[in-house]
Amino acid sequence: MSIRPVETIAALRQRLEEARRGAARIGFVPTMGALHHGHGQLIALARSKCDRVVVSIFVNPLQFDRVDDLAQYPRTLADDLALCESLGVDDVFLPAASEMYPSPPRCTVEVAELGDHLCGRYRPGHFRGVATVVLKLFEIVRPDIAYFGEKDAQQLAIVRRLVTDFNLPVAIVGVPTVREPDGLATSSRNRRLDPCERKLAITLFRALSAAADAIRAGETDAAEVKRRAMATVPPSPDGYGAASPAGPALRIEYLEVVNSDTMQPVVQIDGTVVVAGALWVGSTRLIDNIRCEPPSLSWRAPRA
Amino acid sequence: MSIRPVETIAALRQRLEEARRGAARIGFVPTMGALHHGHGQLIALARSKCDRVVVSIFVNPLQFDRVDDLAQYPRTLADDLALCESLGVDDVFLPAASEMYPSPPRCTVEVAELGDHLCGRYRPGHFRGVATVVLKLFEIVRPDIAYFGEKDAQQLAIVRRLVTDFNLPVAIVGVPTVREPDGLATSSRNRRLDPCERKLAITLFRALSAAADAIRAGETDAAEVKRRAMATVPPSPDGYGAASPAGPALRIEYLEVVNSDTMQPVVQIDGTVVVAGALWVGSTRLIDNIRCEPPSLSWRAPRA
Repeated sequence: MSIRPVETIAALRQRLEEARRGAARIGFVPTMGALHHGHGQLIALARSKCDRVVVSIFVNPLQFDRVDDLAQYPRTLADDLALCESLGVDDVFLPAASEMYPSPPRCTVEVAELGDHLCGRYRPGHFRGVATVVLKLFEIVRPDIAYFGEKDAQQLAIVRRLVTDFNLPVAIVGVPTVREPDGLATSSRNRRLDPCERKLAITLFRALSAAADAIRAGETDAAEVKRRAMATVPPSPDGYGAASPAGPALRIEYLEVVNSDTMQPVVQIDGTVVVAGALWVGSTRLIDNIRCEPPSLSWRAPRA
Repeated sequence: MSIRPVETIAALRQRLEEARRGAARIGFVPTMGALHHGHGQLIALARSKCDRVVVSIFVNPLQFDRVDDLAQYPRTLADDLALCESLGVDDVFLPAASEMYPSPPRCTVEVAELGDHLCGRYRPGHFRGVATVVLKLFEIVRPDIAYFGEKDAQQLAIVRRLVTDFNLPVAIVGVPTVREPDGLATSSRNRRLDPCERKLAITLFRALSAAADAIRAGETDAAEVKRRAMATVPPSPDGYGAASPAGPALRIEYLEVVNSDTMQPVVQIDGTVVVAGALWVGSTRLIDNIRCEPPSLSWRAPRA
């Protein structure tokens, strides 16, 4: 028997109200479906820490800046439900867009500063949509703890700030990125890669790793770090990664060294930073990041 | 013994957590202090409907567009606490600005459409500040019911929309405006009027009443309604209400007929509207409004 998703806000609230009366600790994993091992980690962690585990599956139209991207976003509901069931999820919340947005919202969350760079720069309105739907889902589920992947570093930083700025009574847990054996970050969008694209997709992680290595080795000049990262990206006919007979288009959209809290680009690296990038492989856009710190800081505050 | 205010978010949450475990229904009245009979009505209603009544007193810097207005906003804490005690308030939340905004917020509530006219047009950023602090206070208090005065009609419409758009699990109750014997809406800002200004302050209610009378008598052209309202405003030397030897400056900032839900100006009146206005008397700005409907609608849906 497959787990039966809850489709309305009212029905979910009623179920959770009962759980809450029994003093259950509620863990929440918001997703857009097309679940992969990364989501599995979030769910497993929630399962190990909470009495009640809620997973939402909602492809949020408000956070897509391009209609075609929304249309092409992978949807694998049957598999998603099977995974949730196998991991012991209690409630799968699967609302229609009309349930979440019965009319166009007039109140939305404006994200200053944190959304100015990286993905925010290339996807106008994206983080307004993310912050707004996360707030709505938090209000609907009222979780004690919510789990987010570190792969979406900018999203995680914004969610943390959302919680701080609005005094939301929920603990945010970031979960390390799950990677394929070659290092590629697991992502719902990986499903869209053909075998040739899949091979090239590792380009991003390789570039980010080169940057992180340079920082950990003591390079403090962010421009130099980026130069070393970009040197690992294979050249393409037009210098910008256009498609060629040899293979699909490959283009780094951005690769940036930012402060790990504010998501602002840094010039001199003197604290914990996130090296983040976005890569286009054919018509698929992938993101990834590595958090790292200069050796002086590692020495002062060992990570292990 | 006077009621002892709670100054930190943590302390208030702890007190309310205990109440909530006892299944208390929590009523909340957010205020900026300088409490008057209008606030008294909100508190009394909350007291009659809820097990636990929380009043917040916080002059929210984020909603002031002018520094001098913030500085001059009346503060009468001892009287406020005495009133709260006399009305049986359980908790007075009195946070410092640094408790509410330990750092400048990066996430704020953007209010589209509803904040475009009336006060929103003349006080840039005002409703962003209002919506943001109301959301924060709701997250801190987590009330079952929150009470707002209908005097601030645009604010009330925005709070209702905030609740709808973000799925906040709180019921919003609007409470009719309390008026002085001559009709002046009670307001914290009335304290700033000298006797001469106090007399002139009734100008606004008189103009709004003329508009409401015209609408209830069947006038459907909003421009004509406004003309009749403005005809009741005493002329001033420069035609714009500048100060003169005869008395203080008097100026209608706006007087508008708007849809009661969307707060958008209407041209033809064919449903419930709000006639709202702002009046400057000397250096004090007062607002007021009257909700009314055309006679056809009154007949179809009698208000009593």
